[in-house]
Formats: sequence, structure tokens, C-alpha cells
Amino acid sequence: MRSELQWVRKIREMARRFAPEIVTGIGDDAAILKRSSGKWWLVTTDALIEGVHFRREYTPAQLLGHKALAVNLSDIAAMGGRPRFFLLSLAIPEDLDDTYVEGFLEGIVAAADRYAVVLIGGNLAASPQGLSAHVTVIGECAAHRAVRRDGAMPGEAIYVTGRLGLSALGLQLLAAGYRLSDELPEPLRRPILAHLAPEPRLSLAQHLAEGGVARAMIDLSDGLSSDLRRLCEESRVGAVLYAEALPLVAEASEFGADPLALALHGGEDYELLFTVREDHIPRLEEVRGQFPDLPLSCIGRTISDPGHVYLEHAGHREPLAPRGYDHFLRRSG
Amino acid sequence: MRSELQWVRKIREMARRFAPEIVTGIGDDAAILKRSSGKWWLVTTDALIEGVHFRREYTPAQLLGHKALAVNLSDIAAMGGRPRFFLLSLAIPEDLDDTYVEGFLEGIVAAADRYAVVLIGGNLAASPQGLSAHVTVIGECAAHRAVRRDGAMPGEAIYVTGRLGLSALGLQLLAAGYRLSDELPEPLRRPILAHLAPEPRLSLAQHLAEGGVARAMIDLSDGLSSDLRRLCEESRVGAVLYAEALPLVAEASEFGADPLALALHGGEDYELLFTVREDHIPRLEEVRGQFPDLPLSCIGRTISDPGHVYLEHAGHREPLAPRGYDHFLRRSG
Repeated sequence: MRSELQWVRKIREMARRFAPEIVTGIGDDAAILKRSSGKWWLVTTDALIEGVHFRREYTPAQLLGHKALAVNLSDIAAMGGRPRFFLLSLAIPEDLDDTYVEGFLEGIVAAADRYAVVLIGGNLAASPQGLSAHVTVIGECAAHRAVRRDGAMPGEAIYVTGRLGLSALGLQLLAAGYRLSDELPEPLRRPILAHLAPEPRLSLAQHLAEGGVARAMIDLSDGLSSDLRRLCEESRVGAVLYAEALPLVAEASEFGADPLALALHGGEDYELLFTVREDHIPRLEEVRGQFPDLPLSCIGRTISDPGHVYLEHAGHREPLAPRGYDHFLRRSG
Repeated sequence: MRSELQWVRKIREMARRFAPEIVTGIGDDAAILKRSSGKWWLVTTDALIEGVHFRREYTPAQLLGHKALAVNLSDIAAMGGRPRFFLLSLAIPEDLDDTYVEGFLEGIVAAADRYAVVLIGGNLAASPQGLSAHVTVIGECAAHRAVRRDGAMPGEAIYVTGRLGLSALGLQLLAAGYRLSDELPEPLRRPILAHLAPEPRLSLAQHLAEGGVARAMIDLSDGLSSDLRRLCEESRVGAVLYAEALPLVAEASEFGADPLALALHGGEDYELLFTVREDHIPRLEEVRGQFPDLPLSCIGRTISDPGHVYLEHAGHREPLAPRGYDHFLRRSG
């Protein structure tokens, strides 16, 4: 079977068509449509599928509802946009009790209120196996202010929000049998919550977009090594990452995991990865001042070597293979 | 478990929020958003799920691609709109070969070209069982020209396009082992194609909307008895259907099926059901003249008895229960 990336390329090629409203079609975090002279719409879709993206046994219904919306909001954040409306297409298996479905709905509506998004439509169907939630979000931004994946030039600084690998650690802890509860100690609770209830970085992303600070941006859903590669390919640049500068989850080693591997290849952090021109770094520092609680790390630099990503570690530079999540390859992270 | 209708009501109640762009939220064939002073956007989502909506053994991949888009376009037709863009969220099981996926994509892109809709984004994921395709379509119409479900008044004529029950007969034939092939005789081919490759009635619907002919409209996806009930509930009217006026599939009786039951409760015809004011019937006749090949039948009348639907048959009037398809009830048609 083709890899996910190969399928996306094939579909993009098959479906390329012109329409005056289309600014960007397939291939970015969200599509961009012209709404009026001063506004653009952003449209994106993503799914959570039981047995693929989550297991019901460790996923509280409310948090699943939150996450089903949050992963889509993260795509709107990656464009620097403001989410406005969403649709929910839900497939419900016969063996699922109403309480879980109600919890899911409460969770997604609570997340919608928190991020000021309104549910405007949807679809309900039976599922032959497992719950799945497909969400489509419509967002907006000022015309020409969306931050795309293809805007980076060589010589820009690469930044990332938060700590990398926290969600992947949370998933390992859940797989090892830990469960979210009031008694769970904080060092276990934090990664598990990062996995079950990621927070889209909407507000920071809007500041980056409106201030013209970020030149290219993507959200980290499949893992840094894969998502950075995508940004580089779209922008036709290369990149060097500095291993020592990565915001690692050091405590992962206490649980037998390698913090560096988690940071490079762990999926579902939903943090933002973006590039900044050297002369715009003072503007970035202004934005940073408004988000004192969110780590913001300079982790590398773009170079003029299209599509190639390197890792610099203890003075050595080595090629970094994309080993993040791909739905149609064996997980190799 | 709650019925599909009960869930939709509950979600509608939970999620009701105000936003200046929202003209209509949950509860119609599509949501309506204001785009600019002269234009509205229409947004809808629907899914085809293997083992629920189709079986792969009798569904050619290209036709599945066509249908995944067509059922959504039918919702845009039901508002009198013009479809413009769509997103595709596809869940692909491991045991499915690339050829079927490619055929599906060819079919959906061919349907998109035929109806002038452009694929602008999507999502690919693994599926634990069966192929499923969730599609979101964005359409448009002139402001204030969308035909909603809630616009009917008592005393209007009820019309329907096409013949009712053809798709349900096709499904029965497929279940009985008939397959689409070049050798299949026409009387079998027609119902099977109606089931596998429905045609959204976009062009007729646009004429009905732009000419102000249809007061309320819905597409027939779950079956006449259920869909008419929905239109009546939203419009706070009742309805009488004349059994003798229904455009039946008479040849169904040759295959042991009851043409009247198929017409009343058979799903997936994707024909249009709409109401017309008495004094607008001349306008309807003008529209009819432009679609000489599409049957257009007056099948009943709205009455002032909110939410109640009756069937008049050989001079007797009896209540007609909604026995169309509901995803969370046993099929009872």
C-alpha cells in the first residue's frame, strides 16, 4: 500500500482545479477561500477513529469530545486563523451506551464554547465497529494574513511551542496501564493529559500571523521529523535542528523512554512549528512577552538544501529521516 | 439507544448558539452562513460507511466515489444551492487494495468535474474495519434564496421528482445476488443504478429556488414517510398524501416487492420533495417545461395539523407512520 504522503500527493495531482475563490487547496493545514475583499475563510477536516487514534478503555468521553475538536482547531491555529464554525459527522457502534455518546457531546460542546466555535451541522450514522468522529472546521483570517507551509526562506530561525514528546509519553503511560484519576501524581498526569486533551495554540498563532512574525507554520501532529520535512518540502528549503536546543521531556527517561526520540518522532503534540526571519526576532520577543507560561524555543535554522533535514548533535550533523506517524506504514517512531 | 431523530434534537438543543453569520444552523439539509450582502454559503456533511451504507462486494469503486459526493450534493440541491467545494475524510482498512481506493478517487473526481465542484482538502486515516468516506460540501446561493424545510404553509401542493422506491428496489436486487454488468437487462439495471449512482437534482432545484417556486424543500434520503414528517415538523404543518398519485415503481411487484411500501418507506432515492403555493403552480409548469425527462408529480397537500401525516388510499384517510431508515432503530420499512 502507498504511504499516507504518497496518497496525498496523488490526490492533490488528480484534483487540482481552478476556481477564483481558492487561494490554497490541498496540501496545507487548511484550505483558504476568499470570502470578501478583506477576509479569507480557512477550512479543514480531521478524524478520531477508535482503535486507530484512541482506545475507549483509557479515554474519558468528555476528553474525547474535546480532542475531536481540538485537533481540528490546531490546523486553524497553524494558519494563524480564528475558528468560527464546525460540523460533526459521527459514526456510533451498536455496543456503545448512550452515556458515552452524551459525554462525548458535552465535551465537544464545552470545547466549542471555550474556543468560541459554533456547531452548525453534522451527520449521525451507525458504525460496524468503533466510534469515529470526523470534524470539519471553518475559520477565518484577514486576507493575505494566513501563514502557509510554503513561506519559509533559507536562513530563518525555526521555533517550536511547548515541550516535544509529552503526548507520546502520555500514550506510553496509558499503554502501560496508567489511567487518568484524581490520585494520579502530577508527573504522570501532565503527559497523559497532553495526550488526551491537547490545547490548540490559537491565541499565540493569531499574534504570530497578525504581526507578520511567522513566515511558514505547521502544527505538530505526526511528529517533528515528519512535520518539519513537510514544511521544508512545501517551502523548498532544508533545515538543521540542534538536538541540544530541543525542549525535551527529560522525565521520560524515568519511564524508560528516550526523550530525544520522543521529541523527534513522537506524534500528537499539537504544538506549533514556525520559521522567523532574523530581523523579525525582536517582534517575536514581543509576542513571547504576552505568553509567559508557554515555552517558545529556537530549535534550528532553515538552509538552502531543499527537502533535506539534518540533526546536529554534539557537534555532528546527520540526516534526520522522517519517522513520525504514517497511517499506512508500520509505526516506526 | 435513542433514535437518530432524538439524538439530532438533543444535539440541536445542546449546541444552539448565536453568531451574526449564521442564518440556519443544525436541522436543515445544510447550514446557511452569510458570505456577503448578496451571497450565502451552504455547508453540509454526510458519510458512506461500509457494512452500513454499502457492501463492497456489489459496489464498483468508481460508483462509490460518485455516490459519496452525490449524497452531499443532494443536500445542497435540497436548499436550491449550487455546490462549489468539498473536503473528503477517508478511513481506509488495511485489507483494501490500492486499486479500489484509486477507483474510488477517480469516481469522486469525475463526479466533482461533472457537477463543477472542487476538492480543496481532506484527511486520510487507517480504519479498523471497512472503508468509510465522510464528505463536507460548501455550496452557495443568492442571499434569501435558500429553500428551507420550515417554509411550508397549510394548503400548498406537495411535489416530488422522479419515481419513488427505485433505489430500495435496486438494493433488494443487489441483496438477491444481481450485479451490475453489461449483460444485465434494463429493468434490473435501472433500479440498481439508481441505488449505486444516484443523481442529485441540482439544476431543477436551482430553478425552483431562484424562481421562488418551492416554499419548503427536502431531499428524500431516509424515505418519503420519514422525510415528509421532518418537513412538516419544521414547517409546523401537516400533510395528506394521495396513494394513487405517487409515482410508483410498478415493476417492483415482478420481483415480489410492494411498490407502495417501497415508495412510502424506501430510502436513498435522493429525489426532491417540495411544496408549492397554489398561485405559483403556473411558475412550476414553466420549470417543468425545461426538464422534460424528469417526472414531476403532485402527490399531496399540506394541511393545518402540525406534524401529522396521512395517507389517502381508495377514499380512506389513515395516519402514516414514519417508517423510513433510522440508523439507531431496526430497519422497519
